[in-house]
Amino acid sequence: MRQILVLGAGQSTAFLVTKLLEEAGHEDWFVTVGDLNLAAARRRVKEHPRGNAIRFDVNDAELRSTQIQRADVVINMLPASFLDLVAWDCLNHGRHMLSVSYRDQSIRDLDRDAKRKGVLLLCEMGLDPGIDHMSAMSLIHRIHADGGRIMGFRSYGSGIPAKDQESNPLQYVITWNPRNVVMAGFEGAQYMENKKIKIVPFHQVFQHTWSVEVEGIGSLEAYANRDSMAYMETFGLQHVHTMIRGTLRYPGWSETWRQIVRLGLPTETLRIPRLADRTYGEVVRMFLPLNIQGAPMEQQLAQFLDISPTGKIMENLRWLGLLSEERIGCKGSTGTDMLVHLLKTKLPLLPGLRDMVILLHELDVEYPRSKRRPERIRSTMILESEGNGFTAMSQSVGLPVASAVKLLLCGKLPLTGSLLPTHPSIYAPVLAELRQSGVVFVEKRETVTPTPERRQG
Amino acid sequence: MRQILVLGAGQSTAFLVTKLLEEAGHEDWFVTVGDLNLAAARRRVKEHPRGNAIRFDVNDAELRSTQIQRADVVINMLPASFLDLVAWDCLNHGRHMLSVSYRDQSIRDLDRDAKRKGVLLLCEMGLDPGIDHMSAMSLIHRIHADGGRIMGFRSYGSGIPAKDQESNPLQYVITWNPRNVVMAGFEGAQYMENKKIKIVPFHQVFQHTWSVEVEGIGSLEAYANRDSMAYMETFGLQHVHTMIRGTLRYPGWSETWRQIVRLGLPTETLRIPRLADRTYGEVVRMFLPLNIQGAPMEQQLAQFLDISPTGKIMENLRWLGLLSEERIGCKGSTGTDMLVHLLKTKLPLLPGLRDMVILLHELDVEYPRSKRRPERIRSTMILESEGNGFTAMSQSVGLPVASAVKLLLCGKLPLTGSLLPTHPSIYAPVLAELRQSGVVFVEKRETVTPTPERRQG
Repeated sequence: MRQILVLGAGQSTAFLVTKLLEEAGHEDWFVTVGDLNLAAARRRVKEHPRGNAIRFDVNDAELRSTQIQRADVVINMLPASFLDLVAWDCLNHGRHMLSVSYRDQSIRDLDRDAKRKGVLLLCEMGLDPGIDHMSAMSLIHRIHADGGRIMGFRSYGSGIPAKDQESNPLQYVITWNPRNVVMAGFEGAQYMENKKIKIVPFHQVFQHTWSVEVEGIGSLEAYANRDSMAYMETFGLQHVHTMIRGTLRYPGWSETWRQIVRLGLPTETLRIPRLADRTYGEVVRMFLPLNIQGAPMEQQLAQFLDISPTGKIMENLRWLGLLSEERIGCKGSTGTDMLVHLLKTKLPLLPGLRDMVILLHELDVEYPRSKRRPERIRSTMILESEGNGFTAMSQSVGLPVASAVKLLLCGKLPLTGSLLPTHPSIYAPVLAELRQSGVVFVEKRETVTPTPERRQG
Repeated sequence: MRQILVLGAGQSTAFLVTKLLEEAGHEDWFVTVGDLNLAAARRRVKEHPRGNAIRFDVNDAELRSTQIQRADVVINMLPASFLDLVAWDCLNHGRHMLSVSYRDQSIRDLDRDAKRKGVLLLCEMGLDPGIDHMSAMSLIHRIHADGGRIMGFRSYGSGIPAKDQESNPLQYVITWNPRNVVMAGFEGAQYMENKKIKIVPFHQVFQHTWSVEVEGIGSLEAYANRDSMAYMETFGLQHVHTMIRGTLRYPGWSETWRQIVRLGLPTETLRIPRLADRTYGEVVRMFLPLNIQGAPMEQQLAQFLDISPTGKIMENLRWLGLLSEERIGCKGSTGTDMLVHLLKTKLPLLPGLRDMVILLHELDVEYPRSKRRPERIRSTMILESEGNGFTAMSQSVGLPVASAVKLLLCGKLPLTGSLLPTHPSIYAPVLAELRQSGVVFVEKRETVTPTPERRQG
């Protein structure tokens, strides 16, 4: 019997654990799910005979080591900040690790050791990052084989309510770690457009948005997602003129969130004494200059942020509860802790409503060695929750991991090192299995006239 | 012979090492100075018979351990990010550590272990943090002994050119780690004023300034320094209505630096490809929106930042070289790396010019058990470089460390644990020695009429 250890039992593990347990009998697997919150781990495993829920504190070095040693493969679904702790132990004990988090420099640095020990540390194996990389690589390799030269690469990801399923004025729901929503953009963003590098600091990320048309959905708004240019090498696209990774939201999210960032609420370092006992309004006023205090709170906020006291943004801030004199009552002590609590409370996916995930690649391709005219290729994947108890987010994050685990335990993933899923021996079988589960990309090609700009390149 | 290990040979260690070597014969000390740059360590030690310069790479665990084991006391002058690495080894080998860096949570957490092992980990032992804490604690204890109740605490620190010694339009010179200047305020700031907590995000820190009068110097500008409120407990001032720690600059610094922050240049995470080969202007344009490009750079910057294209701020940005098409040629790859290089180049302390450090405490004191009227107490320390080859910064950072080392090695500092210099058995003898070296606080008291605001408290 092969042992699978799943670390973390958060929202995005629901589908993953169910899927692993479904196949556990047939494949002869045993699945252990560990979380700091034992009840959460139990909810995932239920009473399945091939599953076990344990209390898992990642900071308990002995427990961590023991559990990892027992496993054949470790699926690390913990927050990204614990990625290296788990990876080091996996390496020490010669165990494979899969993760849906972004691979950081510390994991990248383990490549040689992992190769030497015959271990696979496979990161960015969820939806975004994950399916986006795999589908992009597959598309890029096909275009290259076809004699195409990629001049522009734009890739967008999104997890939002399905169309007409929005239950709140922000048209957004929390289907993954809300801390990642609150801290989105914190380290700024960087991309290349028409050969020009653009750098966007945190306080500008949600101001620096643009419209993106998604087939069948309509116009969404995009903001830049982290360091897009780091992927030029990953994807072998060093020569492109445009390289953008973005995140999509329904129009209006960024306009409101921008003001929350301008206020300065997302901060993980400044500790507010007795946060739980204060009210939202009280905390928000801490971020306003003293000299405008005294007026009604709407007026203070409007004056400081230079927004309308009666407009849509103010309505959203009020709806979120940021102006309320309600006791916060959350754990933690920072502005980020408060926002996480607020988003969990105000933006849940209500029962009966469905979410949706979107991936969209938009590539500009030339064919320098033939007379074929330049094309813009759009490859779109839209997955809606089927209302079967799993969110589209949980499904699309869990499917590629589950698929990779199966390949790995069957001996069909003969790679080692610290990797992203950009190698055909990973993405080809995983994408094939995703297609069978309904994760399908629809491709459209449109001939374009090269702009003078592009010709210069 | 007692062994003193000094880690780091940066600007602020010049005076410290000289002072230690001066006393080494008399006290029977041997001083080892380690730096990644062996030449820098040699410049500090020169050919002194009681000193030795070594190449020290803090990431080399074996070397670190060996050197720390050999020492009786370790003076850690490395950048703050290496504080815990060194502290752990000191704890393991039962060696005392002194540091001028801010004590973070990881060092705070070592308190119990340090006590158990009889080890002293003493942080914030330089100028600011350092002398500021010691002089504040001394003042606070005197006021309490005098029946006073402190209602307001404001403490300012500064290291700037001496009056009429400014050699550049920004009236600032680099006398300590320039990376700390570039990243100042990055984690935001927090303080309390009239019982109201104020939180200032990074992009507002240099906008959120106020004037402070310094006796004999004139009016300087202050910005909030980190989390002032964390010191309420440290200083036993939980009941104050105002708690502010600030940094002082000549008026105008913040107005210019604010625009550099708004542009987003201080970032340590986004890597700019081939930074060294680009020009300053080229990099600055990466931070400007595409749609305003094409116009002359002054006009683009002015439009984006909403500042005058012909005013003083633009003149400063131009003087700094941010608009120039000169090749950067620096190490590293981030906006911060570029700014560090620029500040080192443009804002050195020119030969023959003198710097100055300032500490100022401003306390509001009531005497609830007597008829004595409320007072505002101002305690000011101004130290100018004597032009003897040492900066006032290097002198004021080195003096308290050197003094504490002497106390420690004489057995006159019988404390253990992870501490700040707030205990009388540290600050009393250190301040006494500082006075002999010309670090003198001048105190002025002024009777004030309590404002209605303060009465409400």
